[in-house]
Amino acid sequence: MKFYEDRVWDLNIAYIGGGSKGWAWGLMSDLALEESLSGTVKLYDIDYEAACNNEIIGNRMSDIEGVKGKWNYKAVRTLEDALTGADFVVISILPGTFKEMASDVHEPEKFGIYQPVGDTVGPGGLMRALRTIPIYVEIAQAIKRFSPNAWVINYTNPMTLCTRTLYQVFPEIKAFGCCHEVFGTQQLLAEMLEDMLGIKDVSRDEIKINVLGINHFTWIDKATYKGMNLIPLYKDFVDKYYETGYEYGIKENWMNSYFTSAQRVKFDLFRRYEIIAAAGDRHLAEFCPPWYLKDPETVKEWKFTLTPVNWRIQNKAELEEKAQRLKNGSESFVISATGEEGVKQMKALLGLGDFVTNVNLPNQGQMPELPMNAVVETNACFTRDGIKPVLAGTLPKAVQNLVVRHVYNQETILEAAMSKNKEMAFRAFVNDPLTGNLSLKDAKILFDAMLNNIREYLKGWE
Amino acid sequence: MKFYEDRVWDLNIAYIGGGSKGWAWGLMSDLALEESLSGTVKLYDIDYEAACNNEIIGNRMSDIEGVKGKWNYKAVRTLEDALTGADFVVISILPGTFKEMASDVHEPEKFGIYQPVGDTVGPGGLMRALRTIPIYVEIAQAIKRFSPNAWVINYTNPMTLCTRTLYQVFPEIKAFGCCHEVFGTQQLLAEMLEDMLGIKDVSRDEIKINVLGINHFTWIDKATYKGMNLIPLYKDFVDKYYETGYEYGIKENWMNSYFTSAQRVKFDLFRRYEIIAAAGDRHLAEFCPPWYLKDPETVKEWKFTLTPVNWRIQNKAELEEKAQRLKNGSESFVISATGEEGVKQMKALLGLGDFVTNVNLPNQGQMPELPMNAVVETNACFTRDGIKPVLAGTLPKAVQNLVVRHVYNQETILEAAMSKNKEMAFRAFVNDPLTGNLSLKDAKILFDAMLNNIREYLKGWE
Amino acid sequence: MKFYEDRVWDLNIAYIGGGSKGWAWGLMSDLALEESLSGTVKLYDIDYEAACNNEIIGNRMSDIEGVKGKWNYKAVRTLEDALTGADFVVISILPGTFKEMASDVHEPEKFGIYQPVGDTVGPGGLMRALRTIPIYVEIAQAIKRFSPNAWVINYTNPMTLCTRTLYQVFPEIKAFGCCHEVFGTQQLLAEMLEDMLGIKDVSRDEIKINVLGINHFTWIDKATYKGMNLIPLYKDFVDKYYETGYEYGIKENWMNSYFTSAQRVKFDLFRRYEIIAAAGDRHLAEFCPPWYLKDPETVKEWKFTLTPVNWRIQNKAELEEKAQRLKNGSESFVISATGEEGVKQMKALLGLGDFVTNVNLPNQGQMPELPMNAVVETNACFTRDGIKPVLAGTLPKAVQNLVVRHVYNQETILEAAMSKNKEMAFRAFVNDPLTGNLSLKDAKILFDAMLNNIREYLKGWE
Amino acid sequence: MKFYEDRVWDLNIAYIGGGSKGWAWGLMSDLALEESLSGTVKLYDIDYEAACNNEIIGNRMSDIEGVKGKWNYKAVRTLEDALTGADFVVISILPGTFKEMASDVHEPEKFGIYQPVGDTVGPGGLMRALRTIPIYVEIAQAIKRFSPNAWVINYTNPMTLCTRTLYQVFPEIKAFGCCHEVFGTQQLLAEMLEDMLGIKDVSRDEIKINVLGINHFTWIDKATYKGMNLIPLYKDFVDKYYETGYEYGIKENWMNSYFTSAQRVKFDLFRRYEIIAAAGDRHLAEFCPPWYLKDPETVKEWKFTLTPVNWRIQNKAELEEKAQRLKNGSESFVISATGEEGVKQMKALLGLGDFVTNVNLPNQGQMPELPMNAVVETNACFTRDGIKPVLAGTLPKAVQNLVVRHVYNQETILEAAMSKNKEMAFRAFVNDPLTGNLSLKDAKILFDAMLNNIREYLKGWE
Repeated sequence: MKFYEDRVWDLNIAYIGGGSKGWAWGLMSDLALEESLSGTVKLYDIDYEAACNNEIIGNRMSDIEGVKGKWNYKAVRTLEDALTGADFVVISILPGTFKEMASDVHEPEKFGIYQPVGDTVGPGGLMRALRTIPIYVEIAQAIKRFSPNAWVINYTNPMTLCTRTLYQVFPEIKAFGCCHEVFGTQQLLAEMLEDMLGIKDVSRDEIKINVLGINHFTWIDKATYKGMNLIPLYKDFVDKYYETGYEYGIKENWMNSYFTSAQRVKFDLFRRYEIIAAAGDRHLAEFCPPWYLKDPETVKEWKFTLTPVNWRIQNKAELEEKAQRLKNGSESFVISATGEEGVKQMKALLGLGDFVTNVNLPNQGQMPELPMNAVVETNACFTRDGIKPVLAGTLPKAVQNLVVRHVYNQETILEAAMSKNKEMAFRAFVNDPLTGNLSLKDAKILFDAMLNNIREYLKGWE
Repeated sequence: MKFYEDRVWDLNIAYIGGGSKGWAWGLMSDLALEESLSGTVKLYDIDYEAACNNEIIGNRMSDIEGVKGKWNYKAVRTLEDALTGADFVVISILPGTFKEMASDVHEPEKFGIYQPVGDTVGPGGLMRALRTIPIYVEIAQAIKRFSPNAWVINYTNPMTLCTRTLYQVFPEIKAFGCCHEVFGTQQLLAEMLEDMLGIKDVSRDEIKINVLGINHFTWIDKATYKGMNLIPLYKDFVDKYYETGYEYGIKENWMNSYFTSAQRVKFDLFRRYEIIAAAGDRHLAEFCPPWYLKDPETVKEWKFTLTPVNWRIQNKAELEEKAQRLKNGSESFVISATGEEGVKQMKALLGLGDFVTNVNLPNQGQMPELPMNAVVETNACFTRDGIKPVLAGTLPKAVQNLVVRHVYNQETILEAAMSKNKEMAFRAFVNDPLTGNLSLKDAKILFDAMLNNIREYLKGWE
Repeated sequence: MKFYEDRVWDLNIAYIGGGSKGWAWGLMSDLALEESLSGTVKLYDIDYEAACNNEIIGNRMSDIEGVKGKWNYKAVRTLEDALTGADFVVISILPGTFKEMASDVHEPEKFGIYQPVGDTVGPGGLMRALRTIPIYVEIAQAIKRFSPNAWVINYTNPMTLCTRTLYQVFPEIKAFGCCHEVFGTQQLLAEMLEDMLGIKDVSRDEIKINVLGINHFTWIDKATYKGMNLIPLYKDFVDKYYETGYEYGIKENWMNSYFTSAQRVKFDLFRRYEIIAAAGDRHLAEFCPPWYLKDPETVKEWKFTLTPVNWRIQNKAELEEKAQRLKNGSESFVISATGEEGVKQMKALLGLGDFVTNVNLPNQGQMPELPMNAVVETNACFTRDGIKPVLAGTLPKAVQNLVVRHVYNQETILEAAMSKNKEMAFRAFVNDPLTGNLSLKDAKILFDAMLNNIREYLKGWE
Repeated sequence: MKFYEDRVWDLNIAYIGGGSKGWAWGLMSDLALEESLSGTVKLYDIDYEAACNNEIIGNRMSDIEGVKGKWNYKAVRTLEDALTGADFVVISILPGTFKEMASDVHEPEKFGIYQPVGDTVGPGGLMRALRTIPIYVEIAQAIKRFSPNAWVINYTNPMTLCTRTLYQVFPEIKAFGCCHEVFGTQQLLAEMLEDMLGIKDVSRDEIKINVLGINHFTWIDKATYKGMNLIPLYKDFVDKYYETGYEYGIKENWMNSYFTSAQRVKFDLFRRYEIIAAAGDRHLAEFCPPWYLKDPETVKEWKFTLTPVNWRIQNKAELEEKAQRLKNGSESFVISATGEEGVKQMKALLGLGDFVTNVNLPNQGQMPELPMNAVVETNACFTRDGIKPVLAGTLPKAVQNLVVRHVYNQETILEAAMSKNKEMAFRAFVNDPLTGNLSLKDAKILFDAMLNNIREYLKGWE
């Protein structure tokens, strides 16, 4: 890495999961739009061919008009190759295939448990965590060995447990987890300003917030725009749209913008707790008792959708066709900012501009009432080679109640996965709010079936 | 108070709830059996006549053969009279009447929520707390004013919130809460020694335990008898009786010995979490998701009973008749040790013998992972004019998960009761594991009905 | 207060100590240079006449060419007048007179104790604290009563104990303490870049630092400029100037720029502890055992000066003459930026631009190894109506050792002053590193003499 | 180990330092007086011959009349032999020889620094720690390997750092440190009862105390005898003997009873801080600034002595002659209780009787204001296979100030010794209160000389 007058050359980025379609292309886009950085991105993927495709697609980008950041993309065959010499490591992988994801999401439906996403908490999130943690153990060990000083950005879900595992295995790691769900809520508040007060063109970073909680179950207890406290306005906004929902939609290029809801869950949680829930409704619903997920009709009433894994399979097929077209040049890559902050964060860590944003980090006191070392999501100051969390304070007790049980469940899952302990994993399973209505017998049947479906990822379990 | 050669004269005890039948007579018994103490017990009760009856009953005791401790009992008309000059304050009251208790226990049954006791957590425990806390606010203020240096022993449920309120109002108070549920589990372990190993006549204080958790949801992570670790033996014991339950029964004079269960809930919790739950099954079941309380049939399978309030009404009538007989001398008082530790604790606090036992106290670090100041139940060293909690350590994470949500709920209830905030009380209501299956609409209907039933105790609520 | 398009009108500032020459004129200057704010500054001072002078001087400023911010200055006779309606409260007072300050600084010299400033720690700082705390108790009570929602900026020394007292008396106060000593160290690092690498015109805010410690004994464990880690460079810089000192001087308009030293104490502390001490040498020396203050010769060797109170008296006389000239117009006010951040902080708190800077606040975990609630100095995020400390981390243990003893001493002083407890004050006196060599007898003599000299400020002490 | 009816057979004790004269003979005595235990003591010593002597002496004891506990003593050649199969490990070694100890104690005298003991803090304690920690690293590693489940009792000084090192190297170790200094203070309080009130024959365990602090700088904030609070009486006792000192002497068989003082330092610390210092005056003086150690005259005034290492050398010679006589039978071993609690603690850990006493353990919250994991001395409950600290609370802030600086210094020393970092060791050296008056140059000269004198114990230091 070379630094000169607000520019950095010869930067090395290792991209683990470098064969991905969505996230890899997004990073390519954002890097192409940034003029102060250039260097090499090493693409590592267990699907080496997919990484090679992205190498071709990535290297073709420099020729596109308007590209400011020129990068060399290179598929590599091993983690060691990817990590050696890396300044940054980006991790964005799919743990397992859609076959396992189908089990995560749909198996519980047989017992009346519905999950719109199934990748964070609930029975699906648990199973996903159990098969992801061993992969992250390997990644953490490789980083410790080959690039201990690199900054590591995680995008994979379950965000909390992926980030947590990295620190558990290699406590000195410089890792953090990023998620755009909170940005979506900032965007909603910006739209609210137009809807309620006619203030147009507010960008989401003008909405200043205090963030606290855990990923996908994050909360905003303070939101301001210039001299204005937005909480009272949000109360009116909730009153206006509580019954109908607010469906105007998100304007920015969110990767899964088609996943939007009518915000009714968010509005309902505000009515209950007087604090803004800051994630998509599909995620929020999964953290609560089955208030919003009792059955498909209930889901409909709350105006969000259960994403079937079939859709993901079809979507992936389409992306793969698109990848072929991009590779052979029959379709040209359209560069557009993703709205993600990864590149901005890299710049800050390189010394090119401090800023404050929300990230997932082990708790060192930023949320004093949550257990130390659990991964929490709060604001943090990004500066050259450093991230310092901001003291976020405490949640209202009634919300703390909802959040803390997931924190302890996630800690239980980590322990179960690290010690390959099936009984401990089952404890986490029955402690989840979504499984509370299962009889013990049914709980055992479902747990065993789901665990069996992912057995090939559970090496060493008895 | 006068002290001379291991004896104390002129001790003053204020008994709040001094018209009670069960607890007051128990204390009289225990005092009568203790030779090193004597003095005056002032009986205060909102039912002054009942206190006067107990004055007569109590004063008659000195004449009974074998009585070692001679005490003067005196009914008083005001808290001020009772407290002024008191060395100890005993609080054992019934907040409200059985009419409210019937609402606590039976109203939720209309919505499929069953509670065997209904005085600690669940919808019933919440309502009982809301009407008890204002009474405890008054008591705490009176103690602050009239007997700030007295030691205060609370026996009233909800234990945690009663004790918590005393400290909230008067932080310098020297109060603690006592409950015999843990003793029952020690007794069970003593019986286990006979059942499994043929070791007879082990007394419960020979079973050494480490206690941690909150009242009625207390846990034992370590139990020994002489040189023996009892946990592996308990595992075998659970295996032996898991299906049938263990029904031999408790031998000691437990006040509610007829409330025994077959310990199946306790055994099931051990199977799940590998730690001994240390309270009666009827209490334990109320803290969990409706695993054991789904419906009356489920309760039957787990071999415990739902105590109907009718029974309590009838029982009370019988006790009142007995009180009359005791008062007019047509029945003689039978003195027998209750198994409670109140008198032993008083002796220790007077300097007549240190010992270690479990009590309810604000958390000052004895359970480092629970919030500071929340009332927890752990061992503590009793010594002259001092109680120092023992560092109990941490619960297994999966159990911590179950416990901590009640801690935060209880803190929410305290805040709601202190600020007379109906919305906050509702948050605690819907956050309870037993109400998780209610639709929001039903939750609101039930909450409003229950709150309405106790409205006369909620002065100042809008 | 009115807010419109990045401007705020009708702002109300209460200035306690509003008759001051240095600080009040500085604030006037900074307000005049800021175009987005306007309103009224109420000047309150126990020397009402001085406040009236400043009213005249302040109101005349609007006529000066180039003034962007127009303010109405108004002397008031009571704290109530000053505080009622205030959006901000600025406190900058001299507790007592130079007579007491002469005792603080010079009385200990009779026993071989030399203090270059004598306003923070050491015997002088203790005495100053004892007479200042009662004044701050009054101020805090007045703020609680008349302007509980105002933001309060303290500039008075002893900074830590003044800020600490405000929170002790009124825990909900929104107060923070500001000091420019850290800025001076940033400035030194900026100059170092020129001296060592020829990089010119670096402004101090381009030097990004992590700040931790207590006021006047603050430390920087991380300093960067763009992509550069400045610690290794500082090591070389220290090597270059360790013996000679670095005397180039500070360029900005620091109020007491003539108080500069040759940074030798700072360099020596770096050699000892490998961390940058971030305050003037005169302050730093007072926190250590008498390494740098053994006698006047030692002070000379370390190249800083003992400021005699005589100089302050003469300086004050000159300022008073200047005040007269400014008032009667024979001298015109020269507006120039002070380098202080007060106005920038006000803007941020009004919603006109978030930023991160170092301030003095009660410890809520930003320094997890220091006692909670003690006032510490770290970075914090300023945003609309909110200041959130950044988690600063921990000091190296050997430095923690030096710092923590002052923290406990300050807490002892607070307790002594609040309870008017002479014996407790004496304990703090003998626990100070500068008094360690006194025999107990001498310690008592000196303490009594100093206390006697400030007796009129110690109402209610026996 | 076999357990039957309150007796334990075949117990295995590993004695590291088993060639010692004082401590080994004391343990032999105490074991001989205890009827419920028997088994084997393996004696390991770097002086194998000394261990062999003790084997002979120990095995001869069973023949002495009145011996209740029969033990088999066996000298072994390796740590592995000693530890394998051990139920308990006792560590009582002399790190280095009297040559090094002479340097620790007398080298600083050249610079006016006087230390009565020189084994805990001060320059001597530091040097002793630096050469002891590597030995304890080895011992901890051996215990981890050969007897990870054994209970480990440490008697070696510096107590705090020896115990701390064991936990640092092997965090799961079941170790604690024992010291009789607090017992001496209990004994003093017992004598006070006779002196002041004529109450005779009070034994020290009847004096109930709350203990808090660090070894040799331990404090008692609460002391009672039966119904009596002893603090006011101690105040009178101090008044009576403050000037003259109290020289009646200790009655029990304290190993170093000839080391008594007139308690004047203890009395002076009570006058200063209103809390009882609970260690011998010779130790206490070393933790303070040179209030009591300014020069030999000052020491004399405070009525304690500086123990010259010459005396220790001569004493050792006498003990060696005695060892020869005991071995060859020309002198018979006189069994008498030492007053130490080691055997009582072993019994409790075996399940033969719970009790509460003071021990040195890592801080897990028993002293919430001291750093976690630092070794502190407080009461703890001993029970079968478990020690649970009692929450001791907090020291008065002015005493906390004195204590905490030593805690951080000891943590610094640990870090320096573990990382073989000379500069960090020097920081601890200059941070000690006894070296505060040295010029930096002198500090460096003394430090280098002392370090040089122990260089053969500092393998791997540059």
